[in-house]
Amino acid sequence: MNILTYESVSLDENETSLKILDQTKLPNTIEILNLTDIHDIWNAIYTLQVRGAPAIGIAAAFGLYLEALRLDAEDYFAFMAGLEKARYYLNSARPTAVNLSWALNRMYRVAEVSKDRSIPEIKELLRLEALAIKSEDTEMCRRIGEHGLTLIHDGAGILTHCNAGQLATSKYGTALAPIHLGRERGMNFHVYCDETRPLLQGARLTSFELMADGVDTILICDNMASQVMKEGKVDAIFVGCDRVAANGDSCNKIGTSGLAVLAKYYGIPFYVLGPTSTIDMSIKTGAEIVIEQRKPEEVTEMWYAQRMAPDGVKVYNPAFDVTDNELIAGIVTEHGIARPPYSESLRKIFA
Amino acid sequence: MNILTYESVSLDENETSLKILDQTKLPNTIEILNLTDIHDIWNAIYTLQVRGAPAIGIAAAFGLYLEALRLDAEDYFAFMAGLEKARYYLNSARPTAVNLSWALNRMYRVAEVSKDRSIPEIKELLRLEALAIKSEDTEMCRRIGEHGLTLIHDGAGILTHCNAGQLATSKYGTALAPIHLGRERGMNFHVYCDETRPLLQGARLTSFELMADGVDTILICDNMASQVMKEGKVDAIFVGCDRVAANGDSCNKIGTSGLAVLAKYYGIPFYVLGPTSTIDMSIKTGAEIVIEQRKPEEVTEMWYAQRMAPDGVKVYNPAFDVTDNELIAGIVTEHGIARPPYSESLRKIFA
Repeated sequence: MNILTYESVSLDENETSLKILDQTKLPNTIEILNLTDIHDIWNAIYTLQVRGAPAIGIAAAFGLYLEALRLDAEDYFAFMAGLEKARYYLNSARPTAVNLSWALNRMYRVAEVSKDRSIPEIKELLRLEALAIKSEDTEMCRRIGEHGLTLIHDGAGILTHCNAGQLATSKYGTALAPIHLGRERGMNFHVYCDETRPLLQGARLTSFELMADGVDTILICDNMASQVMKEGKVDAIFVGCDRVAANGDSCNKIGTSGLAVLAKYYGIPFYVLGPTSTIDMSIKTGAEIVIEQRKPEEVTEMWYAQRMAPDGVKVYNPAFDVTDNELIAGIVTEHGIARPPYSESLRKIFA
Repeated sequence: MNILTYESVSLDENETSLKILDQTKLPNTIEILNLTDIHDIWNAIYTLQVRGAPAIGIAAAFGLYLEALRLDAEDYFAFMAGLEKARYYLNSARPTAVNLSWALNRMYRVAEVSKDRSIPEIKELLRLEALAIKSEDTEMCRRIGEHGLTLIHDGAGILTHCNAGQLATSKYGTALAPIHLGRERGMNFHVYCDETRPLLQGARLTSFELMADGVDTILICDNMASQVMKEGKVDAIFVGCDRVAANGDSCNKIGTSGLAVLAKYYGIPFYVLGPTSTIDMSIKTGAEIVIEQRKPEEVTEMWYAQRMAPDGVKVYNPAFDVTDNELIAGIVTEHGIARPPYSESLRKIFA
């Protein structure tokens, strides 16, 4: 049946606590956290026990609902004061994650426009809103998967980078959505997972979620992608995106742009998969995207039993890179597949 | 003065023991081993305390000399029996390393053609032969450096992969020879070192030896090379080689071919540096080169404090890849720089 037996984030059966698959423990331990306290939920977001923009937004929406449930306010204004405090608090867990504030604001607005309702009614509306945020995310991912599935055939070899999968969303993922959706329909694929240095999301997370779904999963070091492509093992490359410019230039996890260059050389189609919310039409090209630099210790020390580079060595550690639009065969969104030239096709998707 | 203060392999002052910089301890500990016992020397080769084809050959030559010194044989035939036993034993430490058997056979032949000499005389000839093997290696590396230095300017940005440096040879290295030679002449370079997964030779060894020589050294993860090139930081790429086919296709550490593809896309010259002994004119193209597959645990467990991928995940772990000749701007040897078309230029070098 190939059904994924876990969810990255959900409410428990009684809808009184938040269940999170602790991603910091993967792949060695599968531990489901059961959280009710807002401080624990804040901490789960802060420490990346739940990660991936959509999953963070959903966790925060559920967190705000659970806090609302506990609020013992005498009137609407006292209730709103408590809700706002909780919203600000949860939002501070990852200040740069757009989905976090987006989900919290959406929740808050439901209460804001319900001044004439009773507090139990508002709590019920918040419950429904949080569930809607989650189910809309699932539906969006399912649609991305549906469009992406038209690009590959049963038995195809697919290469992916980092984790743009179910673990980062409510279900299906973005880059991995076609694979999970295909599995539901009895298809199988051979998926090459880049380990994705320095943080190893591919080795730790993508391998885990694909194996959990029964996918034929092959882990490689990032620098092996060229050889794997040269040997004809890869029919398509699927990656996620953190931000797409109006001309199609796509910012994603460091290492993505190199794959796109290799794909062009070896004649393999390279696809970017993501929701339209990651397309930023206010940015003309990728040159406007500022790339976050992270600390050297991620490269020289993290994970290792001992330091693996000389003390004091300089390290260049950009977290993302930008892939030129000319290297991208298609941008797969919930509304369809944009093809080059992207300045036209992306505009059409938004029209 | 920028003089390298260590050697990978040498005789001590009194020429009665072998000094080896223990590369398994780098970069955290600088430990010089002082070995006299042939079993310890075998072990140093076997456990990669000394590594790199030229350095292994030199260590074995010194090892055979030191064993000859200790041989208390009554006549020539008894001496040769002891020497042959030692030769076979040392050769078994790394059976596939060509330089190892090459150096041992060269040493043995010196004794073989000296039947009419006294045993002390033969021992002296063996000492001179071992020193010659080392000094010839240094001279060869120096020449590679000399030719390579014509390809770069003071202050250039250079990207390298794995360790084809002084640590792998007697001095200078191959891919790193132009950099060390340039340092002797007061030049400086900005060298980007790929960490080189899975075994991290770039992080552990190349960073170490470049910093020891006062080079501006910047460590990156392998998947960051595309971004570094895109940002215009790289003027040339220098890599070593394990085997070059008659048409110029070059086999080197996994990850090399991807760099060559990126270099072409970004318009950066990609150079292979190595002695003519690595050019195998009996192989027409790189397709004839069989690529060694190594064990999964190198990717999933080695170095890590805990396992970093799910139990039972498949791993594809090729140790080498082959770079197409069309991606190579030049092959730098001790006899000069071969340029495309390589089927002609390499033949000329051997003529």
